Amino acid sequence: MSIKNRIYLDYAATTKKEIGNPNSIHQEGVAAKKKLETARRKTAAFFGARPEEIIFTSGGTESNNLAIFGAIGDGKHAITTVIEHSSVLECFRELENRGVKVNYLPVNSDGILELKTLEKALRPETSLVSVGYVNSEIGVIQPIGKISKLLKSYKLHVTHYKNEKLIFHVDASQAPPYLNCEKETLGANLITVDGHKIYGPLGIGALFVRRGIKLKPLMFGGGQESGLRPGTENLPAIVGLTEALELAKKNREKESVRLTILRDFFIAQIEKEIPKVILNGSRIERLPNNINFSFPGTEAEFLALQLDAAGIAVATKSACLKNERESYVIKALGGDPLRATSAIRFSFGKDTKKSDLEYTIKVLCALF
Amino acid sequence: MSIKNRIYLDYAATTKKEIGNPNSIHQEGVAAKKKLETARRKTAAFFGARPEEIIFTSGGTESNNLAIFGAIGDGKHAITTVIEHSSVLECFRELENRGVKVNYLPVNSDGILELKTLEKALRPETSLVSVGYVNSEIGVIQPIGKISKLLKSYKLHVTHYKNEKLIFHVDASQAPPYLNCEKETLGANLITVDGHKIYGPLGIGALFVRRGIKLKPLMFGGGQESGLRPGTENLPAIVGLTEALELAKKNREKESVRLTILRDFFIAQIEKEIPKVILNGSRIERLPNNINFSFPGTEAEFLALQLDAAGIAVATKSACLKNERESYVIKALGGDPLRATSAIRFSFGKDTKKSDLEYTIKVLCALF
Repeated sequence: MSIKNRIYLDYAATTKKEIGNPNSIHQEGVAAKKKLETARRKTAAFFGARPEEIIFTSGGTESNNLAIFGAIGDGKHAITTVIEHSSVLECFRELENRGVKVNYLPVNSDGILELKTLEKALRPETSLVSVGYVNSEIGVIQPIGKISKLLKSYKLHVTHYKNEKLIFHVDASQAPPYLNCEKETLGANLITVDGHKIYGPLGIGALFVRRGIKLKPLMFGGGQESGLRPGTENLPAIVGLTEALELAKKNREKESVRLTILRDFFIAQIEKEIPKVILNGSRIERLPNNINFSFPGTEAEFLALQLDAAGIAVATKSACLKNERESYVIKALGGDPLRATSAIRFSFGKDTKKSDLEYTIKVLCALF
Repeated sequence: MSIKNRIYLDYAATTKKEIGNPNSIHQEGVAAKKKLETARRKTAAFFGARPEEIIFTSGGTESNNLAIFGAIGDGKHAITTVIEHSSVLECFRELENRGVKVNYLPVNSDGILELKTLEKALRPETSLVSVGYVNSEIGVIQPIGKISKLLKSYKLHVTHYKNEKLIFHVDASQAPPYLNCEKETLGANLITVDGHKIYGPLGIGALFVRRGIKLKPLMFGGGQESGLRPGTENLPAIVGLTEALELAKKNREKESVRLTILRDFFIAQIEKEIPKVILNGSRIERLPNNINFSFPGTEAEFLALQLDAAGIAVATKSACLKNERESYVIKALGGDPLRATSAIRFSFGKDTKKSDLEYTIKVLCALF
């Protein structure tokens, strides 16, 4: 008898009987559980990891919160950078409220965390280091592999302090379409990804949790996701995330080449036509799809609204920062303080064409 | 220019450009923000509440966690019942780990929390009471309105203890299709609802937070949902939840009458044909869509698998309890201990027809 002809008398478990609750013992539940296991296996493959190392969450923000609060335990010292996304930074501010000493490391003028800066900040009692793979505002790529090597060597040298518990978390939300996110490449213990940043669904994310790392859950309930994330699994979104990760990996090389050409064309044209602009963030260690320019003498929001009126959607700073006039990320790069209030982010994606950029350049030039 | 012809250069905010990130300032963001505000207004209307009293979450489990951990503050004493869903009970167990004294109140043999039991447990320092509107296993409806009146009167009498902070949380996840969930009817300070329990999407829930109640967030980040629930709003799911709540309310009366007739037919037939069965939970204060029978002498899982093989999906206990052989809810009703290991839940929904139940009765009778 196919599921369609069956009699479903388990509406209290879930009304979505075409999907089923993976925790139910009936046929609908078993089918759902199989789909969940397949998705977990595929997501694990994306990280070069094992299925049991994958925890599905409600998104990047939850993955970051679970990683940071879950890893800190009774840790006394934690390290992050001044340019992290608010879903990381605000967790560290809360850690400070809870008595953890936090170092917010500066970045250099290219937006990159220098290894020597990190090395100086490390202490025998450091429990947690969190560094974003890519900055969402300026697209700068951090040397994650080198950082994890540094942390491993530090751990080795301070073994006599029993500092086995130096956990390294990487928020890779912006990275999957462009960068290798495998656990061996990054060397991190915890890696965050997010569905809606990579053409997957909203409301879904995952956290890679390296075997042996014990986290404390943020939420409590039915024991799903190895007890780390209770609640009925959001199976359609989990499947969507899995497919988005697979596509990101599959299209990565081709799309990176295509967008790098567009990015460098756009940068060259704007710098030629509007010489006063300042490119924020490294020219080299930069995502193929991100450009961030300051237009000194302009108010970023006003410029963004002018572009919006011309049919072009851009950002002034992280969408997750509502009440701040300037970008703390761009401020952290140093230089002219007007840079932080006049910065526009142009971030490209699968539908971005050269003609879109030519039009955008034309509109921008007309405004200056 | 319509959104379709626009140039979207904000993929880093969200790749879902047809939806937009409600926190972005461009046209796509503004359109998303409007949809979010409409959904919030409609969800508020469902509770008879104000838009600013609605917090969207990732589901019932998160709403319960946010309510309980958010409300406890530095509270020293909290009360719940022994029959709550695991997403409530496990939070209280964690509260105990954090030094809060918890009373788990018993229910009577009908599964109902008696007011005198609650009254005896209240203390001047009680900060939080959490009682589910409807039990998900046995469908019993608690006297929420009377409980909130008792709590209000207790508060009035102990004002000299400055106990203004006695917060009442109600998990109403199973209730919207059948019961009035308005804030004045329930009198609660916090009310949980869940999308996938009411024909809405998975991965979305809401928490009604009465004006004046200050919660501490579970997660930290971009300040969305009045700072109580960071992360890009899951707009498609929020709209789906809103529509599910509206439909639940619209169809409530008619569907309750229809399912009550089916429920009572099923109960009468089973009790006639299989006299040894025991109906678990009140016959009167019971959801129209829930029947829970114990079949003493049978192992519940074995019976459920036999029904499954005959094409009928039922549950043995909450899907959120994996590793337990017996139901703690049914155990709490007292009587024969075999009741808890032989209980089957039949929960009906919009597609349940009389012929489904007739077939189920036939299959069951053949098994006994």
